[in-house]
Amino acid sequence: MSELLGVAVLGAGHMGADHVRRLDRVVNGARVAAVADPDAERAKDAVGGIDGVAVHTDVEAALDAPGVEAVLIASPGEAHEETLLAAFARGLPVLCEKPMVPDSAGALRVVEAEARLGRRLAQVGFMRRYDAEYRRLKSLLDGGRLGRPLMLHCVHRNVSSPPHFTSAMLVTSSVSHEIDAARWLLGRELTAVTVLRPRPSAGAPDGLLDPQFVLFETEGGALVDVEIFVNCGFGYEVRCEAVCEAGSARIGDAHTMVVTAAGGAREEVAQDYLVRFADAYDREVQSWVDATRRGRVTGPGTWDGYAAAAVAEAGVRALETGARTPIALAPRPAPPDLS
Amino acid sequence: MSELLGVAVLGAGHMGADHVRRLDRVVNGARVAAVADPDAERAKDAVGGIDGVAVHTDVEAALDAPGVEAVLIASPGEAHEETLLAAFARGLPVLCEKPMVPDSAGALRVVEAEARLGRRLAQVGFMRRYDAEYRRLKSLLDGGRLGRPLMLHCVHRNVSSPPHFTSAMLVTSSVSHEIDAARWLLGRELTAVTVLRPRPSAGAPDGLLDPQFVLFETEGGALVDVEIFVNCGFGYEVRCEAVCEAGSARIGDAHTMVVTAAGGAREEVAQDYLVRFADAYDREVQSWVDATRRGRVTGPGTWDGYAAAAVAEAGVRALETGARTPIALAPRPAPPDLS
Amino acid sequence: MSELLGVAVLGAGHMGADHVRRLDRVVNGARVAAVADPDAERAKDAVGGIDGVAVHTDVEAALDAPGVEAVLIASPGEAHEETLLAAFARGLPVLCEKPMVPDSAGALRVVEAEARLGRRLAQVGFMRRYDAEYRRLKSLLDGGRLGRPLMLHCVHRNVSSPPHFTSAMLVTSSVSHEIDAARWLLGRELTAVTVLRPRPSAGAPDGLLDPQFVLFETEGGALVDVEIFVNCGFGYEVRCEAVCEAGSARIGDAHTMVVTAAGGAREEVAQDYLVRFADAYDREVQSWVDATRRGRVTGPGTWDGYAAAAVAEAGVRALETGARTPIALAPRPAPPDLS
Amino acid sequence: MSELLGVAVLGAGHMGADHVRRLDRVVNGARVAAVADPDAERAKDAVGGIDGVAVHTDVEAALDAPGVEAVLIASPGEAHEETLLAAFARGLPVLCEKPMVPDSAGALRVVEAEARLGRRLAQVGFMRRYDAEYRRLKSLLDGGRLGRPLMLHCVHRNVSSPPHFTSAMLVTSSVSHEIDAARWLLGRELTAVTVLRPRPSAGAPDGLLDPQFVLFETEGGALVDVEIFVNCGFGYEVRCEAVCEAGSARIGDAHTMVVTAAGGAREEVAQDYLVRFADAYDREVQSWVDATRRGRVTGPGTWDGYAAAAVAEAGVRALETGARTPIALAPRPAPPDLS
Repeated sequence: MSELLGVAVLGAGHMGADHVRRLDRVVNGARVAAVADPDAERAKDAVGGIDGVAVHTDVEAALDAPGVEAVLIASPGEAHEETLLAAFARGLPVLCEKPMVPDSAGALRVVEAEARLGRRLAQVGFMRRYDAEYRRLKSLLDGGRLGRPLMLHCVHRNVSSPPHFTSAMLVTSSVSHEIDAARWLLGRELTAVTVLRPRPSAGAPDGLLDPQFVLFETEGGALVDVEIFVNCGFGYEVRCEAVCEAGSARIGDAHTMVVTAAGGAREEVAQDYLVRFADAYDREVQSWVDATRRGRVTGPGTWDGYAAAAVAEAGVRALETGARTPIALAPRPAPPDLS
Repeated sequence: MSELLGVAVLGAGHMGADHVRRLDRVVNGARVAAVADPDAERAKDAVGGIDGVAVHTDVEAALDAPGVEAVLIASPGEAHEETLLAAFARGLPVLCEKPMVPDSAGALRVVEAEARLGRRLAQVGFMRRYDAEYRRLKSLLDGGRLGRPLMLHCVHRNVSSPPHFTSAMLVTSSVSHEIDAARWLLGRELTAVTVLRPRPSAGAPDGLLDPQFVLFETEGGALVDVEIFVNCGFGYEVRCEAVCEAGSARIGDAHTMVVTAAGGAREEVAQDYLVRFADAYDREVQSWVDATRRGRVTGPGTWDGYAAAAVAEAGVRALETGARTPIALAPRPAPPDLS
Repeated sequence: MSELLGVAVLGAGHMGADHVRRLDRVVNGARVAAVADPDAERAKDAVGGIDGVAVHTDVEAALDAPGVEAVLIASPGEAHEETLLAAFARGLPVLCEKPMVPDSAGALRVVEAEARLGRRLAQVGFMRRYDAEYRRLKSLLDGGRLGRPLMLHCVHRNVSSPPHFTSAMLVTSSVSHEIDAARWLLGRELTAVTVLRPRPSAGAPDGLLDPQFVLFETEGGALVDVEIFVNCGFGYEVRCEAVCEAGSARIGDAHTMVVTAAGGAREEVAQDYLVRFADAYDREVQSWVDATRRGRVTGPGTWDGYAAAAVAEAGVRALETGARTPIALAPRPAPPDLS
Repeated sequence: MSELLGVAVLGAGHMGADHVRRLDRVVNGARVAAVADPDAERAKDAVGGIDGVAVHTDVEAALDAPGVEAVLIASPGEAHEETLLAAFARGLPVLCEKPMVPDSAGALRVVEAEARLGRRLAQVGFMRRYDAEYRRLKSLLDGGRLGRPLMLHCVHRNVSSPPHFTSAMLVTSSVSHEIDAARWLLGRELTAVTVLRPRPSAGAPDGLLDPQFVLFETEGGALVDVEIFVNCGFGYEVRCEAVCEAGSARIGDAHTMVVTAAGGAREEVAQDYLVRFADAYDREVQSWVDATRRGRVTGPGTWDGYAAAAVAEAGVRALETGARTPIALAPRPAPPDLS
């Protein structure tokens, strides 16, 4: 393992630039081989002073650049389908940021394309699966000590939403994390969704339905409820309680330092997801690099990307109609080689 | 205030006997003047060795016994309407255990009877309003520092349910506490209810739909969700988180002693409501005695008893139909004298 | 038990007035029969509108007043010895606020006087023994599940000290609570004391050695350390961790409501001992009234009052000399009737 | 920064092998260039399948091996002085596991040797300075918001001690972490030490004085107390509370997941330091690699290694004599270039 894995990073926005830094300075065993962005200046900025990294404005050119052995896709979601297919065509392992493909039809095409290859090439960037707390919860549930999970109570709060965030994006962009986490924790597909809309907070931009309360039903009759509140004003909070037949387990209240000063004992609350999930991103990319260097693909795959898109689409319909909305997934292709 | 208030306790079951003990040995300013129960032996047992307490099998005789100045009703709910009306007829102040009257039609008759008196006589036994944690939460919400409440997330778990507990009783007997607490905390009536039914826990008796997940909508567009799980097996837990426009407040995770021993740091979880709410019962009865001795009636009233009954009835329909069920309250009579 | 115990309250300062209110309005089974204070106006204020309470400026007159069956001493510590002896002479049961007698020689005379009576009459006001958290800790230690206690780590912090508080009073007035709590929790006498003096806090009045760090050794070789910091500025905190051979148990971090708002998750910290120990005072007096009405004396006795005085005296010498100071207790008289 | 830093790892025991793995598979920007151990088989085992790593039984040969640009010393403490001087002679940057040199005279020779070089070459492995909780506490104290620190209360507990662990090693091996942490957090040297010896726990091996309670005084009058208990039986706990003039801050009670099951709400307690401080070791080595590649030396230096040795020696005398023991440090050489 003395060779460093050469990675092409596609997309040099906030997330892409962060991944360039991560591959160059944090992760073991990889190097940035190429960076592509339609905006060449932005790509150059992301590269910074790293030696020997080619900058491209064209995705295909970056994929074909010398030394490129794997691809990290951090471009906008609309470009993902085409890019994934281009990587598949070249047999390149891929780590693709979420959403894998924003619409379920396109996502399904990616699933089918990979199925035709007969082996896994893609990992989807659901980084919560790499968070230490979520992993502990998953491990506890899989161990069976608490019996079968009956309900998941989830809370997902952001200080404020970015401009142009729409009511539908609370489901498609924010709750998509809980959609994947619930599927993964429970090992079950989601079968129906209902979205309740309390009166919006005075702190939400005009017209934004924020907060929302989203209810999922699952195969086997478990229930998942999610409070999504993206303009809560006070912190970034992600909590999850799994209520099981023989006990309950909660994550998301972790604290480190308790400061007692005038008026109270206080624990800090993270203000954004980059603080809360910094380690999860590092572990996700490290895990992907380690597996790729061993010729394997692990982690969430294209089916997970498709299922998240299909559930989110049903969620948007549920938001619009106010009605309980069944979720119908396409038949799942025979899974590719489980490397 | 050197005279002790003479109280007739009606009903000498578990709760009635506990109130006899409380009035005799815990509460300041009252004495047990009479105890009535159809089962004279049970009444005698409840009285124990207290001097000068008459035992009756007839309610009216107990109400008319010498020294009776106030009434505490702890008989089965079916008997409450008649007893309340008998107390009203005598102008006796009453503390009536919940449910005030099990059916909303009967409850409304009690409201109307009191309204005709032109003054309050009855307090209903919603003891959570006297719990220190709930009071702190209420005070915080009323203070306005966190802005308008948008959602209440409630959890209500019992180790196990008594024999003959039915699926409907999860709503009418257990969630009735959250119904009153939500109305009181939010200062709003509930307008609709939906009951979701996850697959029952293996720990629940055959045929019992346990747990359930109950959703209430309120005037003004807040949302209240309640996990009710009466055979959770591990403890008695009552939690409530109020999510507001500028912050969130949680009660129900109180702990006192942390014991670190092999394997973990552990906080005790109460095993039943008599432990969790022991102080609340004491404060409730003390507060009623104190007010009564000053000629006043405070605390939850007959309208609160009626509203709880009406909401619970709608909840049972929602459980049976699986559908969102609107809640229609009768017009509220002009409130009696607000003593 | 329908008769109310008639209590003479001696001393109508802050604490005495609070006990008058408690006996009149909180505690079950007692009534205020007399109040004495050298300042008649203050005594009258403490009585307020309670019917039939005689006001005295002379202690002996109050003890001899009609209806007085028991005595609660809340006068300044210097007056306690004489008052206790006067109560003993009349065979009256006593609850005496701490310090029982400020100097150990006087305290010992009280012990011996009670021993000569051949039965217990006095309970000393170490109210922490009635605090729910301390009782839970005591019960855990006595149960033996954690093995033998090796160390107690104690923290005792006040927002600020009253005027005229001296460096010695950190030991004699504040740490005296930990002295009794340690003796009670461990069931052992203290055998030596060392007082360390960090550089005083800028928040302490000029010349006051605050904080101090007090170390006690006990029979059987356990160690007790106490941080006493009476001008900490931020809250009233009383914590105790018992480190045992098979585990550790901590009290004093109890919380009820957690409020998450801008910047952090916050639990309230009590600002004074009347909030933190309000229930303990109520339980202490109720427990004394209940026992007295049954003709018994329970709770901490005169030997505990003497031991606290002797340890505190050694602590003051340790503070002054900087040296480890052995604690020598007088031989303990045969205990009076253990009622 | 595309070149990987070639590191010679000296010592292939438990810690050395862990550092080989860390450099090869976790840390970014470094590679293992050579491994040395007197036991060639052990060295080979540590290298495992890593390509191109030379194995040596001779330290000097390893330092002179091709590609070696820096040294990580994980051999037994007795060998450190000679190895450090050999690395200094070659101008090689060093990360040296604690203790830098076990005796203060030898440690001082290392300080002086580095001082003669005129620039820093060595970092000492006090990994707590890289722990997220400690860094947060340090940052809070340095920020000044809580005022001057007055006391540190420290707890350091291990499940059990290794064979042959002596009473003196509780101070020299275990408390040495608190010695460095206290110096670093307070920015002050320690000036005296007292060791108290409670009766040993039944869980400690015969003859081992465990637990101990160690008191340090510092320049400027702060106080540091440390409970060291290396056979506590129940977990690995490291806690630190800084009591300051305007507030208190605690670390070491961090939790992630709360599991509520029969009988209680439980948080896991780490069972050993490799779990508790896994991230700290990773960050320490990453930080050293990053600085070294930039031609700099940061982190704790030889003076810190010397001071820890000198304080520990005084601590052992204090343990043996039972007396307060002053700590005298040699004059500090002018610090080398502060790169």
